[in-house]
Amino acid sequence: MPNPSAAMLVIGDEILSGRTRDANMYFLAGELTKSGIDLKEVRVVSDDAPAIIAAVKALSEAYDTVFTSGGIGPTHDDITADCVAEAFGRHIDVRDDARKLLEDAYGKRGIEVTEARLRMARIPDGAALIDNPVSTAPGFTVENVHVMAGVPAVFEAMVASVLPTLTGGTPLTSQTLRIMRGEGDIAGPLRDLAGTYPDLSFGSYPFQSNGVFGANVVVRGSDPALVAEAMTKLSEVFPDA
Amino acid sequence: MPNPSAAMLVIGDEILSGRTRDANMYFLAGELTKSGIDLKEVRVVSDDAPAIIAAVKALSEAYDTVFTSGGIGPTHDDITADCVAEAFGRHIDVRDDARKLLEDAYGKRGIEVTEARLRMARIPDGAALIDNPVSTAPGFTVENVHVMAGVPAVFEAMVASVLPTLTGGTPLTSQTLRIMRGEGDIAGPLRDLAGTYPDLSFGSYPFQSNGVFGANVVVRGSDPALVAEAMTKLSEVFPDA
Repeated sequence: MPNPSAAMLVIGDEILSGRTRDANMYFLAGELTKSGIDLKEVRVVSDDAPAIIAAVKALSEAYDTVFTSGGIGPTHDDITADCVAEAFGRHIDVRDDARKLLEDAYGKRGIEVTEARLRMARIPDGAALIDNPVSTAPGFTVENVHVMAGVPAVFEAMVASVLPTLTGGTPLTSQTLRIMRGEGDIAGPLRDLAGTYPDLSFGSYPFQSNGVFGANVVVRGSDPALVAEAMTKLSEVFPDA
Repeated sequence: MPNPSAAMLVIGDEILSGRTRDANMYFLAGELTKSGIDLKEVRVVSDDAPAIIAAVKALSEAYDTVFTSGGIGPTHDDITADCVAEAFGRHIDVRDDARKLLEDAYGKRGIEVTEARLRMARIPDGAALIDNPVSTAPGFTVENVHVMAGVPAVFEAMVASVLPTLTGGTPLTSQTLRIMRGEGDIAGPLRDLAGTYPDLSFGSYPFQSNGVFGANVVVRGSDPALVAEAMTKLSEVFPDA
């Protein structure tokens, strides 16, 4: 059985303007690989309702699970929750359980729950809350879409809450061989090896180091013994690697 | 007139598996912002022909310009050129002008132009070559799609070749105010300010530093004087920022 598939939707002008370098995609990709869930596609869209709604619909239909990052804070450009509700045709409003979480946490710290902060308690009908141990305001799950914060510390904590609830496949293992040859010398033998091992995937990632060309060849698969066997053959073809 | 729109398509399993952290998206986003071209969407897909073809078609139709990154090297998983040709219904084969580039460059270095290396001379009919001053193998432009390498040094050189050929809009300028208050306190005044300046965009990017909540508020616009004016008002609302 193939591994479950996943997609990620990153919402935020700050990534598209080049102001912020993405961290959540890199983090989630690594966590999903460890869990045996195949991340197949990522989309980054701006804080624009039609773009968010269209992407949520498309990814939710195409993949088993979707993770979103960003746009669930208290400011006027935080429109993700409303867009996800719209994508699934669900009613959304401030929900009592989410409001109570915020009131309890802010109350302890003597901070007023302003109207703006209450935006963070807007949750679509029927959604399950995702725990936020960092800054209280919850994420939520609607159907197969997990809606999470963009701040990396909060995003990572929410991923940790959600992942154990998902059924993963077989985690992928990988081995890498650093070969100090141009990719043009590597490509032929690598294609032959890929033909011999149809259950493994072979990737070649070229680099240049002090003017010398090389490539990291990565063998990936769910069977560690098979990966090791292919890696041994690869080392025999490139004994100087 | 609104600025020209752009999208980026990143092709590569290494990003989706979490092995590599994206660098090209971050670089391109910054360059486009400086050029007055609005990056509206990014997609990351795996080395999978139907996924690449569908993304090229969708982005090419929806935006003025599309930049792709990755999948144009000599190995069996480098299928971007063929997929772009397919997306536009064009014939593709090893093209003489691209073959000559490779033969000249490899010849000088005494390296054989293997069959694998010749893959890098596969160019769709009617495409214009994009110069690669780093490692010779060219990118190419078909209609509104610029097909570039994934290796960051090469990608950056190709972007430098392509950008001067595009007509940009007005470059965006931005100013940032670091406010050591929770976003819930910032959201109300910020929404009011956004209402006063409909031509500017206001973004709020929360952070947590030693347990204290704060946010970087970014004011963006094409008119530097207007951005400065709004920033002055923002500073008056948060005098302790």
